[in-house]
Amino acid sequence: MTPEQLKVAADTGWVLLTAFLVFFMNAGFGLVEAGLCRKKNATMILSKNFVVFAISTLGFYFAGFGLMFSDGGLLGTAGGWLLGGADNSPAVGSRYQGIFGSLNWAGVPLLAKFCFELVFCGTSATIVSGSVNERMKYASFLVFSLILTAIVYPIAGHWVWGGGFLAQAGMKDFSGSTVVHSVGGWAALAGIIVLGPRLGRYPAGAKPTTVPGHNMGYVFLGGMILWLGWFGFNPGSTMSLDPEAIARIAVVTNLSACTGTLVATLYAWWRHGKPDFSLTVNGCLAGLVSITAPCAYVTPEASIIIGGIAGITVVEAVVMFDRLRLDDPVGATSVHLVHGVFGTICVGLFGVKGYGGLAHDGLFRGGGFAQLGAQLEAVVVVGAFSFTTSMLAWLGIKKGIGLRVSPEDEVGGLDIAEMGMEAYPDAIEMETRSQEEVRIRPPDTSRLTE
Amino acid sequence: MTPEQLKVAADTGWVLLTAFLVFFMNAGFGLVEAGLCRKKNATMILSKNFVVFAISTLGFYFAGFGLMFSDGGLLGTAGGWLLGGADNSPAVGSRYQGIFGSLNWAGVPLLAKFCFELVFCGTSATIVSGSVNERMKYASFLVFSLILTAIVYPIAGHWVWGGGFLAQAGMKDFSGSTVVHSVGGWAALAGIIVLGPRLGRYPAGAKPTTVPGHNMGYVFLGGMILWLGWFGFNPGSTMSLDPEAIARIAVVTNLSACTGTLVATLYAWWRHGKPDFSLTVNGCLAGLVSITAPCAYVTPEASIIIGGIAGITVVEAVVMFDRLRLDDPVGATSVHLVHGVFGTICVGLFGVKGYGGLAHDGLFRGGGFAQLGAQLEAVVVVGAFSFTTSMLAWLGIKKGIGLRVSPEDEVGGLDIAEMGMEAYPDAIEMETRSQEEVRIRPPDTSRLTE
Amino acid sequence: MTPEQLKVAADTGWVLLTAFLVFFMNAGFGLVEAGLCRKKNATMILSKNFVVFAISTLGFYFAGFGLMFSDGGLLGTAGGWLLGGADNSPAVGSRYQGIFGSLNWAGVPLLAKFCFELVFCGTSATIVSGSVNERMKYASFLVFSLILTAIVYPIAGHWVWGGGFLAQAGMKDFSGSTVVHSVGGWAALAGIIVLGPRLGRYPAGAKPTTVPGHNMGYVFLGGMILWLGWFGFNPGSTMSLDPEAIARIAVVTNLSACTGTLVATLYAWWRHGKPDFSLTVNGCLAGLVSITAPCAYVTPEASIIIGGIAGITVVEAVVMFDRLRLDDPVGATSVHLVHGVFGTICVGLFGVKGYGGLAHDGLFRGGGFAQLGAQLEAVVVVGAFSFTTSMLAWLGIKKGIGLRVSPEDEVGGLDIAEMGMEAYPDAIEMETRSQEEVRIRPPDTSRLTE
Repeated sequence: MTPEQLKVAADTGWVLLTAFLVFFMNAGFGLVEAGLCRKKNATMILSKNFVVFAISTLGFYFAGFGLMFSDGGLLGTAGGWLLGGADNSPAVGSRYQGIFGSLNWAGVPLLAKFCFELVFCGTSATIVSGSVNERMKYASFLVFSLILTAIVYPIAGHWVWGGGFLAQAGMKDFSGSTVVHSVGGWAALAGIIVLGPRLGRYPAGAKPTTVPGHNMGYVFLGGMILWLGWFGFNPGSTMSLDPEAIARIAVVTNLSACTGTLVATLYAWWRHGKPDFSLTVNGCLAGLVSITAPCAYVTPEASIIIGGIAGITVVEAVVMFDRLRLDDPVGATSVHLVHGVFGTICVGLFGVKGYGGLAHDGLFRGGGFAQLGAQLEAVVVVGAFSFTTSMLAWLGIKKGIGLRVSPEDEVGGLDIAEMGMEAYPDAIEMETRSQEEVRIRPPDTSRLTE
Repeated sequence: MTPEQLKVAADTGWVLLTAFLVFFMNAGFGLVEAGLCRKKNATMILSKNFVVFAISTLGFYFAGFGLMFSDGGLLGTAGGWLLGGADNSPAVGSRYQGIFGSLNWAGVPLLAKFCFELVFCGTSATIVSGSVNERMKYASFLVFSLILTAIVYPIAGHWVWGGGFLAQAGMKDFSGSTVVHSVGGWAALAGIIVLGPRLGRYPAGAKPTTVPGHNMGYVFLGGMILWLGWFGFNPGSTMSLDPEAIARIAVVTNLSACTGTLVATLYAWWRHGKPDFSLTVNGCLAGLVSITAPCAYVTPEASIIIGGIAGITVVEAVVMFDRLRLDDPVGATSVHLVHGVFGTICVGLFGVKGYGGLAHDGLFRGGGFAQLGAQLEAVVVVGAFSFTTSMLAWLGIKKGIGLRVSPEDEVGGLDIAEMGMEAYPDAIEMETRSQEEVRIRPPDTSRLTE
Repeated sequence: MTPEQLKVAADTGWVLLTAFLVFFMNAGFGLVEAGLCRKKNATMILSKNFVVFAISTLGFYFAGFGLMFSDGGLLGTAGGWLLGGADNSPAVGSRYQGIFGSLNWAGVPLLAKFCFELVFCGTSATIVSGSVNERMKYASFLVFSLILTAIVYPIAGHWVWGGGFLAQAGMKDFSGSTVVHSVGGWAALAGIIVLGPRLGRYPAGAKPTTVPGHNMGYVFLGGMILWLGWFGFNPGSTMSLDPEAIARIAVVTNLSACTGTLVATLYAWWRHGKPDFSLTVNGCLAGLVSITAPCAYVTPEASIIIGGIAGITVVEAVVMFDRLRLDDPVGATSVHLVHGVFGTICVGLFGVKGYGGLAHDGLFRGGGFAQLGAQLEAVVVVGAFSFTTSMLAWLGIKKGIGLRVSPEDEVGGLDIAEMGMEAYPDAIEMETRSQEEVRIRPPDTSRLTE
């Protein structure tokens, strides 16, 4: 084996293992969402998060991957449907003659690239899932996910990662603050506008009602799984074992997560009087989303500042969306949309020329607006496109099969109405038994006296 | 360091990391099982799934590994007990002179091979665990697991992976649809025949009673962990960083999981009227089990078909076992036995000559019955052996220490009877407190009116 | 790319991926702790375990890493704050001229070393978390964690891993039985002495009250995650893909976990009459902690003995701490302190000269007290230092902001008092609904009759 072949082999292992970590983020999203919502909708939420990756896989396999990465102008038109099209990437040992010019910088086999890009596409769809919880029909969500992953995400992605006009304008989004998180966030925002808030969330003339979640254990574990997954998301985006780069990306990713976590905790403590645990987790996620675009381009010091800012803005964003009466049960827009945009801009603010091949220093490093301009253009263009096309898709589905369950089903819970199955189905039986035991065996209050 | 040494080093990292993912499947099996069963048996189920890997490790270390992989005829007799026996695999830098001829194709050190094979053996034992839940004694399960992992699994495995007569007949089972899943499935089937159904499951002259599980959050997370684990299970079975192979195996594994998930969801929706979440997860697992044997030998297109078929057959298999009054609380036989057999046959139907060194095209690719015959022979031989020896083991244990708890213990729950500990032990105390709070603070119904 | 560069690349991948596994242990600790404690304190416990890694990261980044690994006498004084200081490790291609002489044996980039060392530091802080549960203030724990990870842990660590006097005396602690587990354990012990037991735990003139945990599902999953994480903890400590070493370390780590699991289960069964599941999990962890120091230096046979002893001592340690009226809700001192010490000593008992560069055979292999003496010295010195400095820190915090919540808050639960959020916030609403349903639909007792 030659060193070149060995490098491809080791890189492929790295790409797949980090892709597996990103895949596992589906579990994290499902748990965070279910935990922050009510018990009566938990099966539906979990089921959506299980099925959505299957939908994403098929959407991306049949159409998305080709649209996103095959050669072409406004979208990839050279092929790539059903993984067709010549590979001929460096991994296969000859000069590149394939149809995936935009992925030619990575030496691993085409199917490894597909694996890695697929799990990113899947992440985008799960972001939407959270925002529309507790009132949307199961079938309608599945249809939207297919549209998002087969069409909307790939086209926007083509412009940034597929060699499109934003890439040519110098825009840089290393791991997808824009491509993954903003696109998902805009799609979610369009969804909650069309869908409307949950019943009773914004009573006329009164403060918004707080709807309690049902399981902080899920929120904890889901948050930890997402944090873990981001160690695949960001360092894996190198698609090669570049030792200096992956180590630095891992460090800055973690630092931003940590300051996001801590600042959100302390800020919520100061602002709301208690260290709100759901904001702790959302602070971590905001720090992670914010460092996703700039992770290859900034210093550890900058990542600390980026995460710290995200820790404050996420708390305020939750308040802002509530003021706007946009009902997002899990704060997905606050985390992914707001900080997808913020992270994208951070490349233009904190970027270091030369890091990860960045062409210009960021504004705060004296580089002027050269990089920042390209970033802002992408924010606006991708935002306008994702929001508009998603809105059209939501409206079309609403017209076609309807979006929202009946008020009765919403009050009674989507689990019984849509899924025919409660999340904790033997609870009634057990509760009865326990009550009998309570009667027989009253609680031993002596245990509470010292 | 030479490129040869580097390759061994990188391959060893790959083998160990994928083995760790497979190890983690124990958590997935435990959660799926506990979630699909009742609260009153949850501690028992979780405990079994925690301890079973310890049992498997000792069984495989003391006897199984040697029986399975050391040189010999009908079983490995050249040694290998307690990891004894010369390694001398390519990893140790000399021509092979050890006693593990059947593992000599892999260049990593012997202990890395042991790690990887061990986690597969452990999987086989966890399959049995699910089927016998809610009525079997803790001790009896532990004894059976030891027999399975020290004797039954290794002998059947020797025939396929240890250079035995099925391997010589050309049978191919890349990651163990037969070796792991069928063997575990047949052992489970024998167990539930000897054990009988749970009390009240099949009332005379009436339809089978549905016994609700107790936690769909466990089922969700367990399913996601298993899906993740399969990315170790299948691509790791290369035991080397062959870039083209591992990327393709990862892609086909995932495609089959996805069509299994989606088709089972839609088919159950059509057949039962609701998109049953437990069938969604079992559909995913059926797709994964089915692609386990053929993952190295088939195209992505074929994997889509394989998973799609599995999505239907898993729904029907659950119904079939219920018709036969074979009570499997979690559907482990429907998933692992039925689709272990199906996946094994798929090699003979969809296999592509040359992929993974396959000697013949499958039936559907015009290769006739050459490969299919070898696959069918293995299905029959391994099935007959595993079922018979397992049956003998179950009957022996029944005679020796008994298999089944008393009806009182079954009704009251195995957690109190066998484990002396409930799964949610402070529930009674907390419930009392909550009820007091409910009295003080009646639910705010205004929250439910818009 | 040269083979040397390739090796650095592959090693860096290994170091980061195993570090990610160790990071995920935070989820495992949080789940085990929350599961073994009561529902009314669960949000607090989960939140602590989420935030503590953020605290550790900042403490280690700002001060700890420099104190621990930069060159110096009693502590590292050559720099390293905020990741400053020259790297110049082999990874950067020149002869070493940096300030981290004690890490120069590893060829990966400095930031990869930082990642790996950071997750170990974080583990130390999570150990403390478990012991002080159910009565300590949130803020006080956060302050202590910062002191531990920025000062106490790094200084003790400097002596063993940073080239300090214990290292020079020949003490060997491969993955941190002393550095991580004992230090965390001593800090926890000091904490529970200063803090006192939970209300009602040790009623005057009566046996200690057993306080039930609230969720064995958490305990199961947490235990599995920790077991998984240890496959990063121990094999990753090589910081390089040494194939023979990492495979052997993985095998011995697992064997010790398995005998720890099984022996603790059987011993508790015999001693207490039931196979206590929490002792099953703690037996596994005790086996893992015990093999952490010697994992590179012992044979598989020795690891079986080490884990087996740990399975007994962990059961007895829980009883002993209760006799001493030291209230540790999750048994963290029994697991980490007792077995951190035990594991450290095992290097001097079972070590094999030459394995992992060990200079002397252990006592049981005829090596006399040469190695054992160095190990015992470290146990005493690190124990005295960690316990004393931790005690001072706890007393200082107690004087400054107080350590313990009010008795009312302790009885009512820390979740409401400290976090303003219950772990299962919709339980009251749902319970009311369920009770109504129970009234309408009495449980179908026919299901329980065959």
